[in-house]
Amino acid sequence: MVSKISKRALETPASPIRRLVPYADEAKKRGIQIYYLNIGQPDIKTPKVWYEYIEKYKPEVVAYTHSQGLLELREAFSKYYERHNIHVTADEIMVTNGGSEAIMFALGVVCDPGDEVVTIEPFYANYLGFASYLNVKLVPVTAHPEDGYRLPPMSEFEKVVSPKTKAILFSNPSNPTGTVYTYEEMKTIVEFAKKHDLVIISDEVYREFTFDGRKHISIFHFEGIEQQVIMVDSISKRYSACGARIGTFVTKNKEFYKNALKFAQARLCPAETTQFGAIGLLTLGEDYTNSVRDEYQKRRDATYESLKEIPGVVVHKPEGAFYLSAKLPVENAEDFIIWMLKEFNVDGKTTMVSPLSGFYATPGAGMSEIRIAYVLEADKLADAVKILGEGIKVYNSRK
Amino acid sequence: MVSKISKRALETPASPIRRLVPYADEAKKRGIQIYYLNIGQPDIKTPKVWYEYIEKYKPEVVAYTHSQGLLELREAFSKYYERHNIHVTADEIMVTNGGSEAIMFALGVVCDPGDEVVTIEPFYANYLGFASYLNVKLVPVTAHPEDGYRLPPMSEFEKVVSPKTKAILFSNPSNPTGTVYTYEEMKTIVEFAKKHDLVIISDEVYREFTFDGRKHISIFHFEGIEQQVIMVDSISKRYSACGARIGTFVTKNKEFYKNALKFAQARLCPAETTQFGAIGLLTLGEDYTNSVRDEYQKRRDATYESLKEIPGVVVHKPEGAFYLSAKLPVENAEDFIIWMLKEFNVDGKTTMVSPLSGFYATPGAGMSEIRIAYVLEADKLADAVKILGEGIKVYNSRK
Repeated sequence: MVSKISKRALETPASPIRRLVPYADEAKKRGIQIYYLNIGQPDIKTPKVWYEYIEKYKPEVVAYTHSQGLLELREAFSKYYERHNIHVTADEIMVTNGGSEAIMFALGVVCDPGDEVVTIEPFYANYLGFASYLNVKLVPVTAHPEDGYRLPPMSEFEKVVSPKTKAILFSNPSNPTGTVYTYEEMKTIVEFAKKHDLVIISDEVYREFTFDGRKHISIFHFEGIEQQVIMVDSISKRYSACGARIGTFVTKNKEFYKNALKFAQARLCPAETTQFGAIGLLTLGEDYTNSVRDEYQKRRDATYESLKEIPGVVVHKPEGAFYLSAKLPVENAEDFIIWMLKEFNVDGKTTMVSPLSGFYATPGAGMSEIRIAYVLEADKLADAVKILGEGIKVYNSRK
Repeated sequence: MVSKISKRALETPASPIRRLVPYADEAKKRGIQIYYLNIGQPDIKTPKVWYEYIEKYKPEVVAYTHSQGLLELREAFSKYYERHNIHVTADEIMVTNGGSEAIMFALGVVCDPGDEVVTIEPFYANYLGFASYLNVKLVPVTAHPEDGYRLPPMSEFEKVVSPKTKAILFSNPSNPTGTVYTYEEMKTIVEFAKKHDLVIISDEVYREFTFDGRKHISIFHFEGIEQQVIMVDSISKRYSACGARIGTFVTKNKEFYKNALKFAQARLCPAETTQFGAIGLLTLGEDYTNSVRDEYQKRRDATYESLKEIPGVVVHKPEGAFYLSAKLPVENAEDFIIWMLKEFNVDGKTTMVSPLSGFYATPGAGMSEIRIAYVLEADKLADAVKILGEGIKVYNSRK
């Protein structure tokens, strides 16, 4: 029956973030303490208002909601966006099962099988999974560690565009690189999309996490392109509520909305209970998100300062999100990560990061690169990166 | 930008259950009281243990769970299935966002774009949405109101099978017809799948709701075909928890599981909070589900007894689920339903049902048929059906 597996399934990669977990589990069994910097699961407590609102509503029948999500939640999102100078009404917002489903709806509305979507690699690894599930081809433009993974020039985008190109998909602040695009960089994307009449799918889930006083530029801050924009969002990182699975699909294009709603109707609705919790989280203002951002900035500093001390590492100071990508002085980062889990420890401790190759669509790209999610307290991060440095030394002398 | 909408989105039908809601909303605005028999949203209270378990766990960080769902929940499902003589381990169960996502994973694992899946029409309307989202073609074998929508004979299945056929998908007890397949009918499906080496996607979400002492036959009660079976399940109806969005994808085929897990990893996980609630619901035993079944049997009786009194209606006594399909003495049931909402009422009340044409893949099929979801108390149902009968009389004399 193996012959019965679809090509789309066989071509879907296992998550590069989750696939090395068995090595970590084995290390744990051997009594090794692991610093998990591989997954974007923050340790920050979810605000209590999550449970308070679930408790507050408590309907007697846990029922379907409208497929586009509860009106009250969509109105709360609308107000939240307003504070970020993003003017969208409740009717332009659809609640989804995390940002994940919003990206899938966006790809599904815009692309038929075989259509192409331009992305900036390294990109959020699960884009590959969504694309293969829906038989869409991701066409990458490559950013480089040497210049801090800044946006490649327009000429690079022009090289990959084809008659099959339907959209451009990217995250800003970027997961996995932590790069925050400037106004000029965003304008390059907008001009590219305008010129080739592409839909822009803008993943803005790390909106608040911009450091050193930087301001986030949303795709909705550009005029005259609203009809070709789909914004993807999620409360997962903002409120440390990854397990809420509440995201949004936001567009001013009524046809995009109407057609995405048909996909939404087929799957009925996002969970009712978690929508109540999300209404609660959206009552939190900038005080909350600023304090979380400051905490991540501290962590960024601890991680970056330790990392740049390691000889041979190529790293730029990340500007946002809670990730950092870097090039290590090793040939195969995945092999190194597995070795760190299987063979290495300092006083019974080791560090787990993600290999970055899974965040590229170009075969063989990013082999020496890693992603670090700085989701632990600053002192733990410093220790984790120190262990990483020790590991590199031993790993390379070993060969 | 309308040209930018994908064919797959344009071909996805709006939900036949939800698409007439605007007419109902208008009627409500005019002060009409509506009996909503169009949607499978029961009025039965969700057991309190749902909220008790959410309250009991309450982790400080609402976090991602494993992509296949919490082990504790999968173990609870395994024990639950054991009680139904379905022997599957926690490793063979994947928690999904409702039964909806389980069906999509099943189609995605088995089918590439253009592949075909045999279904028995009328079928659960959202199968069409899942199929067009994933570019799979549903190939129907037609059941008929005149014989209570019983399984068509093997010869009908043989007519539609092609080299592109990868699977057969059906629900038992059936949504929308309420038919419960006998052992012999299930055996026909099994033999057909064996003969053509097809995957069987068995949607068993109404397992407990079988009336008059009938026993539900699960696809897992057949031996020697386990490797080509995917069972789809959901807690939505069983525990009146439609808003929980917790379902399962169940298979003993390790390749199916492994590949579906890649899709699951891309979307990260089902909501953590609702998984806790589901663990709670699964502590309920047969006493609970039997009492709910008895309530639905009473409602079935009230609906059926009233409906068969209406001249010209073709209806057989439904055997399970909480739906009934029937042929009305009208040419176009959708037109009639809209008329009922726009033009008709008895003492300020009217009845809303679903047109059945949207539950067929064959164009033009089921035009005179409707689905009734008997999700209200028995006396309300009797009144609602009486109003439907009055409506038919006036509608037909009007022409």
